[in-house]
Amino acid sequence: MVKKITVGVIGAGYWGPNLVRNFLLVDDCSVKHVCDLDMEKLRKLERLYPHINFTTRASDIFSDKEVDAVAIATPVATHFGLAKKALENGKHVFVEKPITKTSGEAKELIALAKKKRRILHVDHTFIYYGPVIKIKEIIDSGALGDLYYFDSQRINLGLIQKDVNVFWDLAAHDLSILQYIYKFKADTVSASATRHAGKNKEELAHLSVEYSNGFVAHLHVSWLSPVKMRQILIAGSKKMIYFDDIEPSEKIKVYSKNIDFVKKTPEDPANPVYRSGDVLMPIYDDEEALLKECAHFVASVRDGKNTITDGTSGLKVVEILEAADRSVLKRGAKVKI
Amino acid sequence: MVKKITVGVIGAGYWGPNLVRNFLLVDDCSVKHVCDLDMEKLRKLERLYPHINFTTRASDIFSDKEVDAVAIATPVATHFGLAKKALENGKHVFVEKPITKTSGEAKELIALAKKKRRILHVDHTFIYYGPVIKIKEIIDSGALGDLYYFDSQRINLGLIQKDVNVFWDLAAHDLSILQYIYKFKADTVSASATRHAGKNKEELAHLSVEYSNGFVAHLHVSWLSPVKMRQILIAGSKKMIYFDDIEPSEKIKVYSKNIDFVKKTPEDPANPVYRSGDVLMPIYDDEEALLKECAHFVASVRDGKNTITDGTSGLKVVEILEAADRSVLKRGAKVKI
Repeated sequence: MVKKITVGVIGAGYWGPNLVRNFLLVDDCSVKHVCDLDMEKLRKLERLYPHINFTTRASDIFSDKEVDAVAIATPVATHFGLAKKALENGKHVFVEKPITKTSGEAKELIALAKKKRRILHVDHTFIYYGPVIKIKEIIDSGALGDLYYFDSQRINLGLIQKDVNVFWDLAAHDLSILQYIYKFKADTVSASATRHAGKNKEELAHLSVEYSNGFVAHLHVSWLSPVKMRQILIAGSKKMIYFDDIEPSEKIKVYSKNIDFVKKTPEDPANPVYRSGDVLMPIYDDEEALLKECAHFVASVRDGKNTITDGTSGLKVVEILEAADRSVLKRGAKVKI
Repeated sequence: MVKKITVGVIGAGYWGPNLVRNFLLVDDCSVKHVCDLDMEKLRKLERLYPHINFTTRASDIFSDKEVDAVAIATPVATHFGLAKKALENGKHVFVEKPITKTSGEAKELIALAKKKRRILHVDHTFIYYGPVIKIKEIIDSGALGDLYYFDSQRINLGLIQKDVNVFWDLAAHDLSILQYIYKFKADTVSASATRHAGKNKEELAHLSVEYSNGFVAHLHVSWLSPVKMRQILIAGSKKMIYFDDIEPSEKIKVYSKNIDFVKKTPEDPANPVYRSGDVLMPIYDDEEALLKECAHFVASVRDGKNTITDGTSGLKVVEILEAADRSVLKRGAKVKI
């Protein structure tokens, strides 16, 4: 008989209800509690799921021996305290991205999870997203040749966060994708970030992540754009990928367009020769990423194996975000990650 | 009787033929000579315009008393020498962007043109382009409110230049637009630029231009993108503009989308309130920009008045490009313009 995994969800704001819905859809998994400080939010969820226990006390979840895992979808600043408590109480942890506000906190959680032999999973949903998995497959196949750069735009009139700036919110996605598809270690980051429309956190930012091998990644993130764009370009010496996540279908286009350089004479500088070939729109799995991710987490809990986006992968994203913060303070200077 | 203006064109590469065609279309203007070192290129043009004199010696143009103005469409490094020669010979000058390779050269040309009482015009074509003129009108009307930022993407699989890097080529356009629509003086620039596909100049660059009043401009330019994008976002406190120059029509969209911040209590951080209104797609003049520009230059020569994009405006663009070069050498550090 398959062991049933029981989950408690903390946080019923924007993302929490998605976690509840998807964990309920996973085979042999149940959601026993949902906790939030805001009774209004709980009452709304209760109309959908009257069989769940709703509470304003996280301790109800931590102390429940039946609960195997805690999913944490609260403001970033609270991740560390809640995840620590959950691990100390022997629970597996599924925590929203970014894992914590500092790399020190992330390291502490990683060590604690190891000691307690519990799964520490970070919700970098894009890593479970069909198009991103397909892009990784294409890159891993070597079809792109030598990789040149990664360039992303993730902008719209956004849900301004109160406790983190725009790159801790949005660039966290691209950094997790970058880490997933490109195996090398990022070397330096420089970032500029500005606030315009209020006294809150920075709403507009540009990050340049450089690698010692010459590969570069540039991320443009904004909560202050009139148009919504979700675009990633990945260029290689043989092929280039354009991923437009706003498109309803055919989100990925693989271009054979590239440039070769030929020398007419030994003294001549290399002359560009443009090639242009067919564009391929590969098919990809379009199952809901979060459902696949929740199922992967539940299976990992059952098998006692780390998930793909474990604490360590979450830590790497936080390390770049911290470096970006330092760069912003140094007015955009390049800083070591 | 209107005085006829006689033009000589130097350079018959990519852009020169466009100058020839448009100067020929201007009333009371004639093209007498076209000069290039490459006879092949001249022979092609001769089939279209057998009435023009084709030559490989620029001196034929400089020494011709009938020639009022010289249009220079040659590699950037040659602009200074040719423009100087033209001015010394009493000719008005129409020179491709960027005006020169250094600000020192630009200053020398500006002084010489003043001394010789000749027009020194830089071909920043976008300033004569209907959509850009319309965008300036909208901004000047105050409709956008306080301006927050300018963000542009000018990327494609490009015509790689041999004598300048991608930002001297492509960002020169956006910097001229920026200067035209936003009257304040840019303060610092930081730039990252990389080369990937050969040993030529940098093909991929990101520039951040900052203003002491908090306005920021970010430019992404690339010769190494599989997709062609020509997009500018300009955001203000009241409205935002999205300019997509790839669109065949309705290139400008004015969004009423913006964010206001309200405080519920004096202690409360300002909370974002999203507004969303109609999107306006304003009509604009779609006459060929270069034709309007050539006509403006010819009229200025006739009237002895500076053009809108004179040497000084060309110099300002070069000053930012030079600062960007310094920033790239300093690995992206912010440098004073």
